Amino acid sequence: MSDIASREKVRALDADLRRRAAAVIPGGMFGHMNVNRLPDAYPQFYDRSEGTRVWDVDGNEYVDFMCSFGPMILGYRHPRVEAAAASQAAKGDTQPGPAPCMVELAELLVERVAHADWAIFAKNGSDATTISLMVARAETGRNKVLAATGAYHGAAPWATLRMDGVAPEERANLHYYTYNDAASVERVIDEAGAGNVAAIIASPFKHDAGFDQEAVDPAFARRLRELCDELGAALVHDEVRTGFRLNHGGSWEPLGVDPDLSAWSKAIANGYPLATVLGRGRYAEAATRIFVTGSFWCQAVPMAAAVATINALRDEDAVAVMEQVGTRLRAGLDQLAQEVGVPIRQTGPVQMPNLSFPADENYAKAAAFSATMLERGVIVHPRHNWFLSAAHDDGDVDRFLEAAQHGLEAVLGCD
Amino acid sequence: MSDIASREKVRALDADLRRRAAAVIPGGMFGHMNVNRLPDAYPQFYDRSEGTRVWDVDGNEYVDFMCSFGPMILGYRHPRVEAAAASQAAKGDTQPGPAPCMVELAELLVERVAHADWAIFAKNGSDATTISLMVARAETGRNKVLAATGAYHGAAPWATLRMDGVAPEERANLHYYTYNDAASVERVIDEAGAGNVAAIIASPFKHDAGFDQEAVDPAFARRLRELCDELGAALVHDEVRTGFRLNHGGSWEPLGVDPDLSAWSKAIANGYPLATVLGRGRYAEAATRIFVTGSFWCQAVPMAAAVATINALRDEDAVAVMEQVGTRLRAGLDQLAQEVGVPIRQTGPVQMPNLSFPADENYAKAAAFSATMLERGVIVHPRHNWFLSAAHDDGDVDRFLEAAQHGLEAVLGCD
Repeated sequence: MSDIASREKVRALDADLRRRAAAVIPGGMFGHMNVNRLPDAYPQFYDRSEGTRVWDVDGNEYVDFMCSFGPMILGYRHPRVEAAAASQAAKGDTQPGPAPCMVELAELLVERVAHADWAIFAKNGSDATTISLMVARAETGRNKVLAATGAYHGAAPWATLRMDGVAPEERANLHYYTYNDAASVERVIDEAGAGNVAAIIASPFKHDAGFDQEAVDPAFARRLRELCDELGAALVHDEVRTGFRLNHGGSWEPLGVDPDLSAWSKAIANGYPLATVLGRGRYAEAATRIFVTGSFWCQAVPMAAAVATINALRDEDAVAVMEQVGTRLRAGLDQLAQEVGVPIRQTGPVQMPNLSFPADENYAKAAAFSATMLERGVIVHPRHNWFLSAAHDDGDVDRFLEAAQHGLEAVLGCD
Repeated sequence: MSDIASREKVRALDADLRRRAAAVIPGGMFGHMNVNRLPDAYPQFYDRSEGTRVWDVDGNEYVDFMCSFGPMILGYRHPRVEAAAASQAAKGDTQPGPAPCMVELAELLVERVAHADWAIFAKNGSDATTISLMVARAETGRNKVLAATGAYHGAAPWATLRMDGVAPEERANLHYYTYNDAASVERVIDEAGAGNVAAIIASPFKHDAGFDQEAVDPAFARRLRELCDELGAALVHDEVRTGFRLNHGGSWEPLGVDPDLSAWSKAIANGYPLATVLGRGRYAEAATRIFVTGSFWCQAVPMAAAVATINALRDEDAVAVMEQVGTRLRAGLDQLAQEVGVPIRQTGPVQMPNLSFPADENYAKAAAFSATMLERGVIVHPRHNWFLSAAHDDGDVDRFLEAAQHGLEAVLGCD
């Protein structure tokens, strides 16, 4: 048993911060990093991070398999990224206009992503998905957008999965198809009116939180491309969660299917706040007509970090590294589950692991598993896919499997 | 004449970057920092910045009176802010959850801003205004929102001032009143239906780009508060542009009028990317029900920078400093204009200077003035208010007035 796993967790400082937070932040926390719906063991506040390790405010150390929900694709405080960021920060960050690294980054993205002829930069994944739809609407002069039922495309009112605070009119132009079901797309096109469809938005694979993941059916991918071509509508890829984890370019390039527009964020700058919309030349003119901006969208440090990140990803052969580590993790977990006698399902790409348990009412088994993992110094999530980085190595997988043995035994105790 | 002013501007590197940008960014640039609609003299790309000085990529030095459109309220690379940011960055930035400085920042905002009982954090001013409306809708169960005609509340589809890419349904719940005209608000309430109004959103003063600024009529401010109380609707303040430049708390506190919700960004972290929604206790429960989040919203460095910024603002008596410098700038410019014989109008608070010229068709005079200022090493904007920081001093005002003499003479040549 490792030092991490054997250490008894004390969470006095976290508890104190939670009490203070409850007085000045609604519910004590907001959004996807809110641990209120996670097992009690999860800390809310973090002190520091390095490589694949994070430390909570009470000094407990964890191997992190969430990568802050995706951004840390090279690991925390990656030397090459930090050096690029520090070098830019010494000159300027938010300034009266962009720094030269904006051009360098746009050129790099256009080089790496097959369908990309241009880039616009923003801060949030939601900014990027929203701008993609604005560009599609400006180009086509139409308003209807087709999205997959249950897919998460951001927290803007048109996209968020919770309806509180959303006016129905803000969703009036959204129509919902079933992922991997081409017939459902065709039905929804009829419903919306073929002449009204500005865009079909899709994630490169189905990764709805709380459900098993589902790879895209290549025939479905090709059919979406055909339908968009027939309609004169934009095929929009939401690469926010997937970008650069599945491929060094667009996620469907291996299938030979390119979108017209794509929305990226999370991992493109290894934790620095950045998003981008990439697009085909046909959509460039429309992109000049929409007015989108933000006070910090020209911030130079995240762009310098992104250039370093994207170059490091290729130089470190990051996708292959993540696949290799992920394959070992998946096989090891399958073997353990068989040994312990707990049925499990692992779905989606190995570099974005997703574990579920059959007949897991209210995610009780997932909670028991992840709470045990956490107590043994490994951060995973009970209902959301995990994320690997290029910094994860065999030692991290060993730590994971050592904890998972106990996690699976805890699941056994649920029955 | 200063060294800066006498230096002939060479812009070869900027021109080269613009050519490269035009190939990979639609129109070569996007948003409010796009110089395509500014006089040719304006550089697009910046190399470095320090205090009140910025240098473009060709090495030309400027005294910056735009503060990057607001964020740099203490000046570029403020030592105390940079030290706080560096100290947090050495530990962690984007992590699996927030750092303790999130709580510290929320407590500080609740202490400084009278109406604030709680805070939620985001990245863009648009995030903060959008979240404010979501909270108001969730609390009231209503959808209609009243906004002032021509006011800028962000670049989200419901708010952006250009309609390209915006579906009409996204604005269906917006109704428009005239700023400082209480009767127009009452008319719009009737139009929307008193029982349907979730919120009235207002800027603390009228600062629409391209127009003279207008202070709020205190009677109008009080009437908005009364109307919201009568309706059971939220009074929402858009403090994105004004926050902490007019007052160390909310901008209407000197009037004795508090909003229910307020949206802040720009200057709260001296250039680090951060936004916040502040609210009254009554709205806290609704704020727990909406789902809003972003990949980088728990980023620790901007929050550590914000704590340092807000403390430094008070310790440096920043509002008084900006008022003093702004008063001297305004008086000096008035006097110069009289001497040169050019009629001018200066409007709005002195720390957010706004200059216009009577009978200035297509802003030709404003363009001549600002282009001349720029050639002489002073950055202002022909159609948008300028911003002072606490770093601006008498020497900067001297530089400004020295350049303005020539700027006004150029305007004289327009007639």
